[in-house]
Amino acid sequence: MLPLLTRIDHVGIACRDLDAAIGRYEATFGLQVVSLEVNEEQGVREAMLAVGRAQLAAVAAGDLQPGYVQLLEPLGPDTPVGRFLARRGEGLHHLGYGVQDIGQALAAIGVRGVRLLDERPRHGSMGASIAFLHPADLGGVLTELVQAAGPA
Amino acid sequence: MLPLLTRIDHVGIACRDLDAAIGRYEATFGLQVVSLEVNEEQGVREAMLAVGRAQLAAVAAGDLQPGYVQLLEPLGPDTPVGRFLARRGEGLHHLGYGVQDIGQALAAIGVRGVRLLDERPRHGSMGASIAFLHPADLGGVLTELVQAAGPA
Repeated sequence: MLPLLTRIDHVGIACRDLDAAIGRYEATFGLQVVSLEVNEEQGVREAMLAVGRAQLAAVAAGDLQPGYVQLLEPLGPDTPVGRFLARRGEGLHHLGYGVQDIGQALAAIGVRGVRLLDERPRHGSMGASIAFLHPADLGGVLTELVQAAGPA
Repeated sequence: MLPLLTRIDHVGIACRDLDAAIGRYEATFGLQVVSLEVNEEQGVREAMLAVGRAQLAAVAAGDLQPGYVQLLEPLGPDTPVGRFLARRGEGLHHLGYGVQDIGQALAAIGVRGVRLLDERPRHGSMGASIAFLHPADLGGVLTELVQAAGPA
């Protein structure tokens, strides 16, 4: 079987206060924010922080996307991340993998018995096309596929 | 501040049945097991599955470690992962970042107000030196630092 996944794209972390969380990751690890967005459809304010000194040369050469820490603050309690915080508290929320072609990836995974939360890709961070897979079919892990706007 | 983290090294996922979880990740995503170990000290049987087609050239050139999905099955209920499963069920357990020098990284992070669960590095997967940081100081995320046995 051809491997579908090109990389660990990001790890999504739910937080109550985005600015405080950004400050903590900057101060502890020296990570830097590369994107700050509001996604009304998903009900979040979010920051992407790039991880990876060793990857910089490959990224600069266009061969590779870096991995990101994605910090997610809900826009209100009645949003997916708002409900997650009420139920489980702050912490790891989802895992995002890079794919080269999200349409092909969804078609392949759909026939392997994993339920798709998004039948069609929608808009993610930094212009990416994304889709979520059902955590109950992946050992409790809410899983996201990401086709980056840049090279995969 | 110099960035301490070289990459997202792995995402740790707690599961009740390691063989079933491996089968699921192989069948869904085409991931392959590159290491299967028992770590008595940490009370787990674990598998590392490499993610990343796009990274293969860089990995082959020795410039880069791939990212891994780490599947963790507890050796018994009275282990950290066993207690996690009883409390929260299967799913995302911790986040591991690569560092070049784990001794330097621990010293730097310790003075930034993040509690170290391991004052000194211990043995991790595939010959790595690892140490955990306290989740309460990192927004609920159990965080691991990894100095790989190979190039960082």
